Amino acid sequence: MDRRSFLKNSALGGGAAAATTLAAPAIAQGTRTLSMVTTWPRGLAGVWDSVERFAQNVNDISGGTLVVEPKGAGELVGALESFDAVTAGQADIYHGADYYWTGQHPAWAFFTAVPFGMTAPELMTWYYGQGGMAKHHELGEIFGVRPFIAGQTAAQGGGWFRREMKTPEDFQGLKFRMPGLGGQVLTEMGSSVQVLPGGEIYQALSTGALDGTEWIGPWSDERLGLQEVCDFYYPAGFHEPGAALSVGVNLDVFNSLTPTQQRAIEVSAGEAHQHNYALFIANNGPALQRLMDGGVKTYQFSNEIWDAFGAASQTVLGSFMDDEIFADVHDHVMAAMASSSNWMSQSDSAYTAQRNRVLASL
Amino acid sequence: MDRRSFLKNSALGGGAAAATTLAAPAIAQGTRTLSMVTTWPRGLAGVWDSVERFAQNVNDISGGTLVVEPKGAGELVGALESFDAVTAGQADIYHGADYYWTGQHPAWAFFTAVPFGMTAPELMTWYYGQGGMAKHHELGEIFGVRPFIAGQTAAQGGGWFRREMKTPEDFQGLKFRMPGLGGQVLTEMGSSVQVLPGGEIYQALSTGALDGTEWIGPWSDERLGLQEVCDFYYPAGFHEPGAALSVGVNLDVFNSLTPTQQRAIEVSAGEAHQHNYALFIANNGPALQRLMDGGVKTYQFSNEIWDAFGAASQTVLGSFMDDEIFADVHDHVMAAMASSSNWMSQSDSAYTAQRNRVLASL
Repeated sequence: MDRRSFLKNSALGGGAAAATTLAAPAIAQGTRTLSMVTTWPRGLAGVWDSVERFAQNVNDISGGTLVVEPKGAGELVGALESFDAVTAGQADIYHGADYYWTGQHPAWAFFTAVPFGMTAPELMTWYYGQGGMAKHHELGEIFGVRPFIAGQTAAQGGGWFRREMKTPEDFQGLKFRMPGLGGQVLTEMGSSVQVLPGGEIYQALSTGALDGTEWIGPWSDERLGLQEVCDFYYPAGFHEPGAALSVGVNLDVFNSLTPTQQRAIEVSAGEAHQHNYALFIANNGPALQRLMDGGVKTYQFSNEIWDAFGAASQTVLGSFMDDEIFADVHDHVMAAMASSSNWMSQSDSAYTAQRNRVLASL
Repeated sequence: MDRRSFLKNSALGGGAAAATTLAAPAIAQGTRTLSMVTTWPRGLAGVWDSVERFAQNVNDISGGTLVVEPKGAGELVGALESFDAVTAGQADIYHGADYYWTGQHPAWAFFTAVPFGMTAPELMTWYYGQGGMAKHHELGEIFGVRPFIAGQTAAQGGGWFRREMKTPEDFQGLKFRMPGLGGQVLTEMGSSVQVLPGGEIYQALSTGALDGTEWIGPWSDERLGLQEVCDFYYPAGFHEPGAALSVGVNLDVFNSLTPTQQRAIEVSAGEAHQHNYALFIANNGPALQRLMDGGVKTYQFSNEIWDAFGAASQTVLGSFMDDEIFADVHDHVMAAMASSSNWMSQSDSAYTAQRNRVLASL
């Protein structure tokens, strides 16, 4: 996904106009209403489910004394104005992918996904068990927000190609759509990276303006019809190995809440994170099966290509390491990942590989 | 882990005596107190954290109007009397591993872990995204409880051995400690399976009364000192690939709660499940590193051994398939696992293997 597609889908103009009305937390008849701006078109499958789960959790467990009112992108402000709207007090909460705020600070990327970074289970472990949440709050403090992860797309697919990718050289000159740090990695590898909104991808692939694209995963990709214009699907990718979505509460608003309400927000976000992860995996599985039943062939990149992804990813991440905060979070993430991954690769991963092998042969 | 170790640790006698006092939900000064009996010795690392997280979540987000009071095993009733205490109305909630209730019905096993079953991420996906929670509630309905998963040990280790295990024949006559369905699988493979409580394992290994044992994972195993009496550690095992812990609320009590309180329990349990998973992985990683730094060598079972584990697991699970409810949940789990695993093995697992390979070489 990317910034522009949300901008395009979100009727930015109307949003910007609406944003001129300053919103303050509403308190009426024992109910406190918190406005929540989002980076998502209302109803977008998967991510909007996370918006609704979080809001519903808060509303339900507070017995209606705290009501979160989600706004689709453009309803109050444009998608990518969500962060500024919250820090400026125009809205109480944002819901989005924190890597949209890398313009504010590059370290926000770690709270969504970075190339060659954590899978969703590793990110859960870091966030809730290895001090990741405290790092999130430290970064939020600087900007006047209190963030919590609240959604999770799980691993995003490697992408769709119009020809088989055999060597790193095949990426040279490749017209590929990938936003963010992942796009920078492919640029490093010589690709001609383009950032098109979701609605324009199908057409660009049809006409040959694009040689390939990533989007999200089978559930979402199938809806764009990418299987109709690309023959080669690579389920594993390096760029977003587990993308968290976050809510961020204006810090003054958060501090004005009761301890009960503050914990309601924290617990609601955590539950929504897990729930959304389950929803994405649960829908990606059948979607992949439908795609394969329909003739899509899946491929894995060669070791040589993964080596090139890895080297270019280190270069791109390394280019931000002069920033002290980025370096601090980067090193924290990498140490946590090495620690949890050492156990998980020898237990969970080894088990899963053997189980799948054995069950297939029985 | 196993039943007897909890029984032993839980001062069963005292617990049984205390249970003669019938407890009813306490309502005083706007606070409703729910007693929660558990299958765990108070303070047991990891699992007791899940008890506390759930109780704290409920207490906090209800603003103290709902208070969960956890009891260690033996404080009100003995560990394995927890289920009956709740269905009989002696206590309001249990916290335990649902496979302790397989004497009541074998299908309870699926809500903790079964041999060759789901990993923790797959179980999350099934439970929250593929209808697993509804199956849990259906089963609970029969017994008069409303269960929710609320903790997660993640994959349990394959175990500790005093010699290297090279072929399935090495399991014949092996004196190995493993309770539950896993133990039945090893019996099927010719092992002499024993079920010793945690406190007796070290001694039995020292004297040669045992040739090996499983316990939980590095975090917990290290505390038993297993590294001092076994030279061969197998991090990956077939028996508990992701063990959930559950709370179960007496159904009449649950139905007497307000919708706000019911959702508070559901959301609190879900958040505690994820939080506990993170805690176990976060602690297993460093513990494994300490063990390896201390000279422990890790091994993986051969394909031939995994094949034998798989065949014996199918035999053991198959022996319960005449039971209609067991078969229904079994088939539901296996279909869900096949669906989610197909996607995850091609995306998450493929990514993780490549990332670990590349980062190690950089």
